[in-house]
Amino acid sequence: MATGKKVCVVGCGNWGSAVAKLVAENTPRYPEFDDTVIIYVLEEVFEGRNLSEIINTDHENKKYLPGIKLPHNILAVPDLKQCIQDSDIFIIVIPHQFVNSTVAKIKSFNVMKPGSLAINLVKGIELTEKVVNCFTDTIEKELGIPCLALSGANVAKNVAMEEFSEATIGYKNKEHAVLFQRLFDRPYFKINCVPGVSAVQVFGAIKNAVAIAAGFCDGLGLGSNTKAAIMRIGLNEIYRFACKFFKDINTDVVFESAGVADLITTCIGGRNVRCAAEFAKHGGKKSWHDIENEMLGGQKLQGTSTCEEVYKVLVAHNMENDFPLFVVTYNIAFQGAEPAELIRKFSNETLNPF
Amino acid sequence: MATGKKVCVVGCGNWGSAVAKLVAENTPRYPEFDDTVIIYVLEEVFEGRNLSEIINTDHENKKYLPGIKLPHNILAVPDLKQCIQDSDIFIIVIPHQFVNSTVAKIKSFNVMKPGSLAINLVKGIELTEKVVNCFTDTIEKELGIPCLALSGANVAKNVAMEEFSEATIGYKNKEHAVLFQRLFDRPYFKINCVPGVSAVQVFGAIKNAVAIAAGFCDGLGLGSNTKAAIMRIGLNEIYRFACKFFKDINTDVVFESAGVADLITTCIGGRNVRCAAEFAKHGGKKSWHDIENEMLGGQKLQGTSTCEEVYKVLVAHNMENDFPLFVVTYNIAFQGAEPAELIRKFSNETLNPF
Repeated sequence: MATGKKVCVVGCGNWGSAVAKLVAENTPRYPEFDDTVIIYVLEEVFEGRNLSEIINTDHENKKYLPGIKLPHNILAVPDLKQCIQDSDIFIIVIPHQFVNSTVAKIKSFNVMKPGSLAINLVKGIELTEKVVNCFTDTIEKELGIPCLALSGANVAKNVAMEEFSEATIGYKNKEHAVLFQRLFDRPYFKINCVPGVSAVQVFGAIKNAVAIAAGFCDGLGLGSNTKAAIMRIGLNEIYRFACKFFKDINTDVVFESAGVADLITTCIGGRNVRCAAEFAKHGGKKSWHDIENEMLGGQKLQGTSTCEEVYKVLVAHNMENDFPLFVVTYNIAFQGAEPAELIRKFSNETLNPF
Repeated sequence: MATGKKVCVVGCGNWGSAVAKLVAENTPRYPEFDDTVIIYVLEEVFEGRNLSEIINTDHENKKYLPGIKLPHNILAVPDLKQCIQDSDIFIIVIPHQFVNSTVAKIKSFNVMKPGSLAINLVKGIELTEKVVNCFTDTIEKELGIPCLALSGANVAKNVAMEEFSEATIGYKNKEHAVLFQRLFDRPYFKINCVPGVSAVQVFGAIKNAVAIAAGFCDGLGLGSNTKAAIMRIGLNEIYRFACKFFKDINTDVVFESAGVADLITTCIGGRNVRCAAEFAKHGGKKSWHDIENEMLGGQKLQGTSTCEEVYKVLVAHNMENDFPLFVVTYNIAFQGAEPAELIRKFSNETLNPF
């Protein structure tokens, strides 16, 4: 007798844990899935106990998602190879700097079942001078299985608290999207699906660079006209960036949670905006390092590094003129340009062509 | 010798005055335009003097845009007929409830020059059970001249203070758009043009209903995931509403200032959001009348009446099911539904079709 597909969440941070929770609420509802949801835990000791043991005994990820009760059908497994060989569906939700090494490790086990599927929840893409690459491609190529992407305006803690949110799944094959929509859609977490996997990932990755620009507006004391203009220009630049580097871009994604909604959330609040406002308030004279120390307890900003990576890509492809917001944001953040340059860049006598 | 076209701003409120200012900065720069910009002033006495005299002598609209110096080539004229017969280009920027009567009056003078052009800056459209109509259509039909539309994320005062903003012109005829872009584009007020006049107006009018829903989120104490979701759903409903009732809708407008940027500004701050938050905080038990009295000094909210008008249109066309956000917002605002119904409406087990 055929049994349901077993789901594995690869990653046990706050987003991985929140996702394991909602997926584990769904698996018992559909015959397509095995009830048990495995969560791969990179083992560590927390308050004197193994994290996997805490999750399996207390049904709570006390380190990364404290205060949230997890369903009892979540099984924490600290052995990656075992996770892979026991599962059919992989939800990849690890910090972006570990994707390549984790995928290589999974590949090396050589235990992946044929017919397996993956979905990428990592917010980030590979951006170097030479490479502009979505992790879905890496996963598909290295593991030889189809990989979809999910992104949206999702603060992990709030999703875990079942505060109403939306997210977007990008797909190539509609049947896979149907399956993953069932897996992820909850009354408090509504899923829309759009064709194409790249745009979903590009928006999720690059919105943080726009948030830096939006924060500069705040720090300069500019009002909502200006901030809305910068966010709008940013939305357009992300979309154009996606179109320049990927073939499967569908305009619909802009209207979805992974597009406009995630950009709005990210530019209105959040650490990138707050730190960039602080930077602009000090006329760019206070270092990012000091700001991170003071405001984030030393944690690193995502937006500034994205900004740098995007800039390098644009230079390597001779595209600086097509992305004025990304370029000026980089120049302010890293090249000593005055924060007010952000606005001067767009305040010109030249009429926009149409 | 051919002389330049004379521009008349019909309306002298804060937005009319701010627009007269920027247009009057441009007219001397282009041979297409006569330097002088006429502003039609519905005469009234302010601090013992006629408003038109104040504008012409002090070069400031002390009643509606105090503190902003106006260019000396602005001429306030209190006689509408004279304004019309002396001008070739009309910028209509009056409260929406006066558009029909003003247009009828202009028509009755029978002094409109052939070849004249108009552009509509009124934020509002006609919405009754039977009629869904953009003012550009009224103006074109009644006056027999082409009419474009301009809208954007523009707080009048901030534009007058030359804080960087953007706006969108919707056009049917590209040549006209070129002319109006020259007329309006300033380094601090950048104009993009999109084909089609309706979408620009529909967004400008209906975004306020979405702002009421966004305000409910704030009042309910919900976080950014939820507010971003509601704004996103609202953006989509405005766009779909435009497509249902007008033929000339181009998706591009969503990416423009009149689309996403204006919606963002309106839903983040502003009176509609603040008052709706107050309404939700009191569980819908405090009347709009009391809220307007307390928070707006008795001025009326735009968003609530838009909400009501949109609802009536949807009912008359049997379209309630296609616009759940508009409907639930109306039910909360006017039918005693609990504010939390806003979220419950979207929190269902049903998967979104795709």
